[in-house]
Amino acid sequence: MSSPVASLKLKANAKSRVLTGHPWVFANEVETLLSPDNDGAVVECRDRAGRFLGSGIYNSKSQIIWRRLSTQRVTLDEAYLRNAITKAIARRDASSASPTHRRLIWSESDDLPGVVVDQFSDTLVLQIQTLAMDQRSQLITDLLAELVSPAEIIVRNDAHIRKLEGLPLGVHTRSGKSWEPRWEKIDGFDYWLDLQSGQKTGFYLDQREQHAVLAKHVAGKRVLDAFCNQGPFALHAARAGAKEVLGLDSAGDAIDQARKNAERNGVNASFNVANVFDWFNDPARHGEPLWDVIVLDPPPFAKSKSALEGALRGYKEINLRAMQSLVPGGILATYTCSHHMQDAELRTVLAEAATDAKRKVRVVEFCHQPADHPVLVTMPESEYLRGYIVRVE
Amino acid sequence: MSSPVASLKLKANAKSRVLTGHPWVFANEVETLLSPDNDGAVVECRDRAGRFLGSGIYNSKSQIIWRRLSTQRVTLDEAYLRNAITKAIARRDASSASPTHRRLIWSESDDLPGVVVDQFSDTLVLQIQTLAMDQRSQLITDLLAELVSPAEIIVRNDAHIRKLEGLPLGVHTRSGKSWEPRWEKIDGFDYWLDLQSGQKTGFYLDQREQHAVLAKHVAGKRVLDAFCNQGPFALHAARAGAKEVLGLDSAGDAIDQARKNAERNGVNASFNVANVFDWFNDPARHGEPLWDVIVLDPPPFAKSKSALEGALRGYKEINLRAMQSLVPGGILATYTCSHHMQDAELRTVLAEAATDAKRKVRVVEFCHQPADHPVLVTMPESEYLRGYIVRVE
Repeated sequence: MSSPVASLKLKANAKSRVLTGHPWVFANEVETLLSPDNDGAVVECRDRAGRFLGSGIYNSKSQIIWRRLSTQRVTLDEAYLRNAITKAIARRDASSASPTHRRLIWSESDDLPGVVVDQFSDTLVLQIQTLAMDQRSQLITDLLAELVSPAEIIVRNDAHIRKLEGLPLGVHTRSGKSWEPRWEKIDGFDYWLDLQSGQKTGFYLDQREQHAVLAKHVAGKRVLDAFCNQGPFALHAARAGAKEVLGLDSAGDAIDQARKNAERNGVNASFNVANVFDWFNDPARHGEPLWDVIVLDPPPFAKSKSALEGALRGYKEINLRAMQSLVPGGILATYTCSHHMQDAELRTVLAEAATDAKRKVRVVEFCHQPADHPVLVTMPESEYLRGYIVRVE
Repeated sequence: MSSPVASLKLKANAKSRVLTGHPWVFANEVETLLSPDNDGAVVECRDRAGRFLGSGIYNSKSQIIWRRLSTQRVTLDEAYLRNAITKAIARRDASSASPTHRRLIWSESDDLPGVVVDQFSDTLVLQIQTLAMDQRSQLITDLLAELVSPAEIIVRNDAHIRKLEGLPLGVHTRSGKSWEPRWEKIDGFDYWLDLQSGQKTGFYLDQREQHAVLAKHVAGKRVLDAFCNQGPFALHAARAGAKEVLGLDSAGDAIDQARKNAERNGVNASFNVANVFDWFNDPARHGEPLWDVIVLDPPPFAKSKSALEGALRGYKEINLRAMQSLVPGGILATYTCSHHMQDAELRTVLAEAATDAKRKVRVVEFCHQPADHPVLVTMPESEYLRGYIVRVE
């Protein structure tokens, strides 16, 4: 017989979002913490009146001490993991996501809090960011091998976020062999991928739809890609008939890679190392021709809630500069990938920038996360990527 | 020489949104009203420090006493109107909107506050909802005739909103002949249109993209269209291979028309007159099979800000009932077309409904206004239509 499941109880006055469907409970929302013996185990959570709120994974070392697995009673065993992984894959198969390059599993959105899996054709990149899932790492890896049959699984447990759960950092492969960097074809372009040691999981899969959306607006145009990373917006724009394409990035290795990608794919685009804020404000640039299209897809400025105010200032600044650098009727494609920046805040930034620039700005396209990064309606944090393509008159 | 332009001055403590780019000034935001001699004229607006905020149309009889035409000095003459109409048409031509059935001009979004024009192949339906534009009605009609060359222009000045500007109600055609109702092909379906006396402008052009989006999710499914109007969602679902389609609407004439439309187009769909709230709650319906797909595209529940709270309750109720009436993994396509309901409020409604229904709800598609109803980033009221296609597990 299994031992009885431990139980967390919410404080009487807790306005915990878990009561309205959110999957998280914070340490300051419960009456008493459980013994660290429960770290990594499934425990139940109840409200003050004793009403059952679900089964979830516990970690006393984390600020988020409880993450709901289910509103039913469940155990985190092989059957649970197999079912959740199978359903996650089925969700992608039923969506418009590419069958070869996609986010296959995404944490709470797939009932696997802390498990993130990206697929790059025959290779899976697995990240584990919660203690409970880390304790079941071998089982998860074995199930992925069985259910997806990849040639390799790279376990990239080097994200700083693991420290918040008291977990060590490290990277290894399932086979034990090192993964050789290679050219990988994504949406018609070769990209040089280093999945074992590259940034994040090696390629940002989440903006692929937007590369194609933007490409509709660039034929015959001068296009600036202000945070170009390894160049996908710039490459797509160049191939879609842009007259001129310039990509900027503050990271020299990103620019090196973007240049190699352009050469490999036979497209004509220039890339320069630059801090975008300084670049826009450089007086030497006055008098240069305005741009027809500008893409702003910056890294997350707001890495925390407390950093949001400064991030919004920075965000307004680059959007203002971009609007001022566009021809009348020019296109601005502007994105944010910060969990902490909600849609209303992005709208305010755009309205303020339009007002200061004295330009009339109309939305051409509303941009969102792709279907392989599912948003839960009860968890705002599951939506982190949004944007607008606007016409600046 | 023209007489000097009158000037409105904002109150010292006015937190008027016009200061941050919004095009409206309300009566309680200015120091003193101008003489009614200025009603319908172009006047300028200045902030407390005398800073010029733009040229706009004035009407002392309206709560919105000033609507900005431009942040520059302009007069509302033939040249202004010709330029604005030409640009509005060019915006549609440059967008993905149908070239034959589209909103051609949309008020503030096209720098023509109070002018709305819908195109139905060779016929334009014009609505004028501000005094200044009403005074220039003949000029606007003549310019539309010249620039679009329609066979007919129907002037539908029967919207209640005209009373807020002190304007009389009435409908007439440019030719003076009455417009004969007819079958009109829109997106592959014949619809019976009565543009001169039908509801609104006769057909809701703003959801056409969504009919196609929903159709991707219906093959082999049982589909309920709970506020079906004359049936476009239901017709598209039936032709896209739905196993069964039922449309509901509280208006008997809408259901009559939906049945005729289905027959004319040779698609298999049933339609019943029903109040959706009562229908979902009818105990006689217990035990009926669950639906695979439900569409909720209700009329605007919140016709004013003060009606919002009740509207949100009603909105949550139907979304909850719909979720409870769906099979596990079923699809809910839920929309709101109320100016007063922002995205954050719709999200809250969905999260509450999901929590009460004890269902896990993931976003499949984010739905927005089509490009022929442009959203201004500085005017939240220009966005009134939004929705989500969600999977309810």
